[in-house]
Amino acid sequence: MSKGLQDGRPDMEKERETLQAWKERMGQELDRVVAFWMEHSHDQEHGGFFTCLGRDGSVWMYCRLYRKFERFHRPELLDSAKAGGEFLLRYARVAPPGKKCAFVLTRDGRPVKVQRTIFSECFYAMAMNELWRVTGEARYQSEAVEMMDQIVHWVRKDPSGLGRPWLSGTPASESMAVPMMLLNLVEQLGEEDEELASNYAELGDWCAQRILQHVQRDGQAVLENVSEDGKELSGCLGRHQNPGHALEAGWFLLRHAIRKGDPELRAHVVDKFLLLPFRSGWDPDHGGLFYFQDVDGLCPTQLEWAMKLWWPHSEAMIALLMGYSDSGDPALLHLFYQVAEYTFRQFRDPEYGEWFGYLNREGTVALTIKGGPFKGCFHVPRCLAMCEEMLGSLLSPDAPVPAHGAGSPPADPVRGSAE
Amino acid sequence: MSKGLQDGRPDMEKERETLQAWKERMGQELDRVVAFWMEHSHDQEHGGFFTCLGRDGSVWMYCRLYRKFERFHRPELLDSAKAGGEFLLRYARVAPPGKKCAFVLTRDGRPVKVQRTIFSECFYAMAMNELWRVTGEARYQSEAVEMMDQIVHWVRKDPSGLGRPWLSGTPASESMAVPMMLLNLVEQLGEEDEELASNYAELGDWCAQRILQHVQRDGQAVLENVSEDGKELSGCLGRHQNPGHALEAGWFLLRHAIRKGDPELRAHVVDKFLLLPFRSGWDPDHGGLFYFQDVDGLCPTQLEWAMKLWWPHSEAMIALLMGYSDSGDPALLHLFYQVAEYTFRQFRDPEYGEWFGYLNREGTVALTIKGGPFKGCFHVPRCLAMCEEMLGSLLSPDAPVPAHGAGSPPADPVRGSAE
Repeated sequence: MSKGLQDGRPDMEKERETLQAWKERMGQELDRVVAFWMEHSHDQEHGGFFTCLGRDGSVWMYCRLYRKFERFHRPELLDSAKAGGEFLLRYARVAPPGKKCAFVLTRDGRPVKVQRTIFSECFYAMAMNELWRVTGEARYQSEAVEMMDQIVHWVRKDPSGLGRPWLSGTPASESMAVPMMLLNLVEQLGEEDEELASNYAELGDWCAQRILQHVQRDGQAVLENVSEDGKELSGCLGRHQNPGHALEAGWFLLRHAIRKGDPELRAHVVDKFLLLPFRSGWDPDHGGLFYFQDVDGLCPTQLEWAMKLWWPHSEAMIALLMGYSDSGDPALLHLFYQVAEYTFRQFRDPEYGEWFGYLNREGTVALTIKGGPFKGCFHVPRCLAMCEEMLGSLLSPDAPVPAHGAGSPPADPVRGSAE
Repeated sequence: MSKGLQDGRPDMEKERETLQAWKERMGQELDRVVAFWMEHSHDQEHGGFFTCLGRDGSVWMYCRLYRKFERFHRPELLDSAKAGGEFLLRYARVAPPGKKCAFVLTRDGRPVKVQRTIFSECFYAMAMNELWRVTGEARYQSEAVEMMDQIVHWVRKDPSGLGRPWLSGTPASESMAVPMMLLNLVEQLGEEDEELASNYAELGDWCAQRILQHVQRDGQAVLENVSEDGKELSGCLGRHQNPGHALEAGWFLLRHAIRKGDPELRAHVVDKFLLLPFRSGWDPDHGGLFYFQDVDGLCPTQLEWAMKLWWPHSEAMIALLMGYSDSGDPALLHLFYQVAEYTFRQFRDPEYGEWFGYLNREGTVALTIKGGPFKGCFHVPRCLAMCEEMLGSLLSPDAPVPAHGAGSPPADPVRGSAE
């Protein structure tokens, strides 16, 4: 971990300067991005946030920043998060006491869309757990834990409550998104909470095992959909790849492997979930990660497959920098620079702040929206906050990381050495 | 109607040559396209057609070509259509005696996807009615009529059987696609059938009136979604435009207006559903029709909004040529040429046949697939067959149109003067 940075050689000094410059860039950009959302997304009248009220992570993000970053420990962030949290508590669940949550709500809290998946509910649980951590109010935590129980029931016992009809021609497939998201929740709820961490230990192992099943073709490809027993599926569903998801799963798995103290798994994850998806997913002609690919090189059926989306790039930055922090392999650091340079150059809006979300294959802006049904105050600031923290840790291997850091110090990217 | 073509002036001779050249181009391309589907899409083992089994129009298209074109009156087309029809009869309905149809089936007929809309069922009814017309077997027609009754019930009485949950925040909106598709079915079932035409006369008027409600903003825009009582909706849903749909609705409405003998409606349709969507939807920089637009010029939230899809262009060709056949306005003919030139240049695959379906904004191929969940043997051959017929009629204003023509002679674009 950041092994090369401590020996004082001149090339290491240069490396340190580069890391320092990137750390400052991340920090400044994080401030700018948070300012953007604070200015544009708050609804003073009804609570909640404009754009993506159901699924977005504003509540979680504000709480996390408030809790982990000295400079964001500001009452206005906490107040906004609490207003958003109360809005979710009051309106997110479509038919209480049922736990299904809306994906989109009107400004005054009426449901507009409900997805037949677990994701809105996962983001709800993340937000409630983070709210509990900053406020100490038990009602938030009981919401989070009860929702988690429901999600686990849907995933492992009986999905019928999600509302998808059973069809005899639909293969029983598993999207990697499901165990990925659950593993993320296991980490969220288990942080500094021995009892919950122990309750969810078996679940975490199950998630990791299920994610690992998506490595197929003799370890040469990560496939987004496989059968429930880990076999490749036929047709375009089976050939579907999502490089950004693989990289995101990579950093969830890497943290899991570090928590477990499993060096073999750590190396496997770097190889299969960081290097492999990066290499196959990076566009050699125009740069950037493809949104979707077909593992046999056939044409995907999704119209947007060749577009460059913001979130695969933010997830790649986290994954590659975490991989470097953990392994000290300079190849990973250079890939991080490659993605970060592309991302800051192509996605960042120097004029009005925040990042564009959707570029065409060549890298020009295809949609000018900053928020939308799938883009809110979540992936961009999470990436910036975690990268700033990891860079800080890399630069100060002997000093404690800055107080309340969100990211991963080199010694233990999971816990944060200040805690 | 093709008024200028009969007076023998030299510039009319030139126009006639251009029309003749386009007629030949359409005919040759139609042969090539049908050969493509006959070669690639038949399943000899299970019946049905590969790609888009549920929703595609192969059965309808083969029957229509067999019935209307001398050169396609071939037993292999009829046999394939019948095999496809039997496959649909046996497998399309997800839970018989319920009428909901699958959108995608496996090769051996198990349902993979069911949409919560009326469209798979509409294509089912079209196919069954056309099969009855070529075979005379009453069971096909009773399937078509019973399905039509069910669709009308879903649209006008009670949509709950479609399976969409009611949500308090979802505005009661009408997509133009619904009355459009129904109007198309009214014409399909009523063709040369006085009794059904009379049964559906009120429904046809209702559909036309509902489509016309989508002309908004003092007649300056066609909006894809309006409230059930014809008011503009707030937000991006209300601002959404689909130029290809407006043009397709245009030719459905134009045929309706001709059947009704309503010259005022004919002029209104040309103005609002042909010229207006063409002018606002045509990309001034790269040519081609945008897939989606926002009426206020804001950025749509659909990732594919700026892509160029094959079907808006095939619908525009039909609409503009029909508008010219009906009105004799040379401006419409020149717009037809403009779209046809773009379409043949950009979408047609000179190497392997058929058309590409999906281009990026600049006109280069974004997806190389020829068939997919939404593209089968339907829009392209329907366009070519109708354009070939309409051009034939324009070129022979005094002679009867070629026997069994699929398209629209100048005197009556609905019925075909040979019938």
